[in-house]
Amino acid sequence: MSSLWEKFYAQRARTLSASSIRELLKVTQIPDIISFAGGLPAPELLPTEEVAAATAEILRTHGTQALQYGPTEGYMPLREWVADRLSTTEMHVTPENILITTGSQQALDLLARVFLDPDDSLLIESPTYMGALQTWNMYGVRYFGVPMDEQGLLVERLEEQLQRHRPKLIYVLPTFQNPSGVTLSLERRARLVELIERHGLLLLEDDAYAQLRYEGEDLPSLLHIAGRAAGGFPDRVFYLGTFSKVLAPGMRLGWIAAPAEVTHKLVMAKQGTDLHTPMFNQIIAYTLLSQGYLERQVPRILPVYRERRDVMLAALERHFPAQVRWTHPEGGMFIWVTLPAAIDSADLLQEALEQRVIFVPGRAFHATGGGANTLRLSFSNSKNERIETGIERLGQALRALV
Amino acid sequence: MSSLWEKFYAQRARTLSASSIRELLKVTQIPDIISFAGGLPAPELLPTEEVAAATAEILRTHGTQALQYGPTEGYMPLREWVADRLSTTEMHVTPENILITTGSQQALDLLARVFLDPDDSLLIESPTYMGALQTWNMYGVRYFGVPMDEQGLLVERLEEQLQRHRPKLIYVLPTFQNPSGVTLSLERRARLVELIERHGLLLLEDDAYAQLRYEGEDLPSLLHIAGRAAGGFPDRVFYLGTFSKVLAPGMRLGWIAAPAEVTHKLVMAKQGTDLHTPMFNQIIAYTLLSQGYLERQVPRILPVYRERRDVMLAALERHFPAQVRWTHPEGGMFIWVTLPAAIDSADLLQEALEQRVIFVPGRAFHATGGGANTLRLSFSNSKNERIETGIERLGQALRALV
Repeated sequence: MSSLWEKFYAQRARTLSASSIRELLKVTQIPDIISFAGGLPAPELLPTEEVAAATAEILRTHGTQALQYGPTEGYMPLREWVADRLSTTEMHVTPENILITTGSQQALDLLARVFLDPDDSLLIESPTYMGALQTWNMYGVRYFGVPMDEQGLLVERLEEQLQRHRPKLIYVLPTFQNPSGVTLSLERRARLVELIERHGLLLLEDDAYAQLRYEGEDLPSLLHIAGRAAGGFPDRVFYLGTFSKVLAPGMRLGWIAAPAEVTHKLVMAKQGTDLHTPMFNQIIAYTLLSQGYLERQVPRILPVYRERRDVMLAALERHFPAQVRWTHPEGGMFIWVTLPAAIDSADLLQEALEQRVIFVPGRAFHATGGGANTLRLSFSNSKNERIETGIERLGQALRALV
Repeated sequence: MSSLWEKFYAQRARTLSASSIRELLKVTQIPDIISFAGGLPAPELLPTEEVAAATAEILRTHGTQALQYGPTEGYMPLREWVADRLSTTEMHVTPENILITTGSQQALDLLARVFLDPDDSLLIESPTYMGALQTWNMYGVRYFGVPMDEQGLLVERLEEQLQRHRPKLIYVLPTFQNPSGVTLSLERRARLVELIERHGLLLLEDDAYAQLRYEGEDLPSLLHIAGRAAGGFPDRVFYLGTFSKVLAPGMRLGWIAAPAEVTHKLVMAKQGTDLHTPMFNQIIAYTLLSQGYLERQVPRILPVYRERRDVMLAALERHFPAQVRWTHPEGGMFIWVTLPAAIDSADLLQEALEQRVIFVPGRAFHATGGGANTLRLSFSNSKNERIETGIERLGQALRALV
């Protein structure tokens, strides 16, 4: 049945569909449901008292500035803070490289606005962050997925894809990837940066989870590898960061680091989108960050999430059939599960809902098909005993299908 | 000289340019410059203490919810508050009609995403809000301007345009219009709503300034006129509201009211854009609004802005040459000035900058050319003596050109 508005909708709006995660998040309102669906921070770790103190302070000292219109580029001290944090002895980053965005999601949208025409080719990891797909679907782009293993993107498969599809951009989440939890190895990072330069395309590095490492050694970002080679801010790497994982998602604060000319284009695109990110939120965040918030908060988060990961991994061993495989992430919020090929995780979700436990079926993370037998589990938002119970329930649901 | 990124930019990004207002706002950082450029609230009226109290309260009582991810639709109590406020005995509005946006600017962008294909025709008031043009330019639409007089849009000119251009949408700011300050008369409102129905197009009503009335009687919105005729929420009117004018622009909070099916489409488009508007800001706003903030704040604002308008109108009489005309707004933030046809307001701005006073030249508000001899003055952001001084300086600058 066609509605009155049908004939008015733009072409791009005809295929719009709600994110399966966000639809699942609504189910999480049911009180006794155990949700491994959304990548939500642990509620008990959210810094309500620190935000309260910072807010009271800035409304006393910067109240008018915090409540007034501000520059599209973002609050200068916050841009400076991000630039300083990214700078190394080999790569000087300036505030002109930094644009503050309304969450990292907006950065994905602004980059699409500035760079993506209909039918442009994009290389993506397969699986990849579904929020990026949801944004870029509206731009009518064509995706080419590159497979991954436990070391991340299979870079040796990339060169062939680059020659065949001549993509404009490659989108990578190299560290504790969403959804797979895997981390791109140092060797592959170096190789990837080199390929980008050689083939002359752009690389978008989404580094939302890098601070959440529970074991192993930090790896340099693709931005820093490229910056070292270039002796300054690299031409072809755009880097996305967020304050949602260690400060608060409800603040909607993220940022893009890019060459100054590109940042300037993104700023103009952002003007028409929301004028600027709330000054109020930016000044609160800057106040916290400049007062050592991260140095206090990250050590509070790490042991909690590390334990939850371990509890989930142990529960998977205990409750899942032998034919099922899963990743062992060194950080982040997610474990990626691969079921026997014949099982569809969407069917499993139906069973699981009856057991009052939910997750995200893997299809949503695959832009080019496949992934029906995969699923994503998030361990950050549930306490240990809920993780144990939830995985047990999920194991039971699974046995009904195997 | 073409940069490395030139060949990567999307078509829509090639024509991107910075808003002249936002560029002018940067000049306002110069301490002794008097700015009539931006439509900024008076800083001394921003509710820093009330926001501080509400924030402390909600971080105590709803802290986790305020800092966590939230629904794309917006914070339900805030949506209910908006719906209740719009409801009349003749038109029941429900939360399903309401989407909370990251400022009203985002609403303009989301509507474009859902409704505007390249080359779609749009009818706009001439002049109109430049922020809307800036957003929609990225969508490659075609504009047809309808002239205005002191009673607003010349509705009798509309019918001919409707037949000739078959536009999808008409965009109207009927009350204390930005930039002209004029208000659409009741007779023309009724006629406009009737034409929309008869010709089967969509109407976008931007009602950012309605609460700022300094004289005369409130007029029903186009939404309410159409709703009364329909006996419920009308099919063809989408209504934009904002909390930037009476609460705080730095919060970036606005909303769309539309038929539930349309709101649902807009929600899906918003998911890909910024996931949701900051929960923190929404809960603070709801707390203030539910505790009678508007009833306290609007009576605080009105006498201050009314006096500033009167001071500016009197100063214009005193300092501007006889050949210059201007509007007499009953509310809002803006006075619209028409210079003799031979004078270009961009030239005047050069003179004015030397006198350390700025405004926005009128060309920026005209999508289809013209307006070179017009300009916009905002009176809300400057104290009486600054208005007096600024208009005197501007009069001197003008005399150099007349």
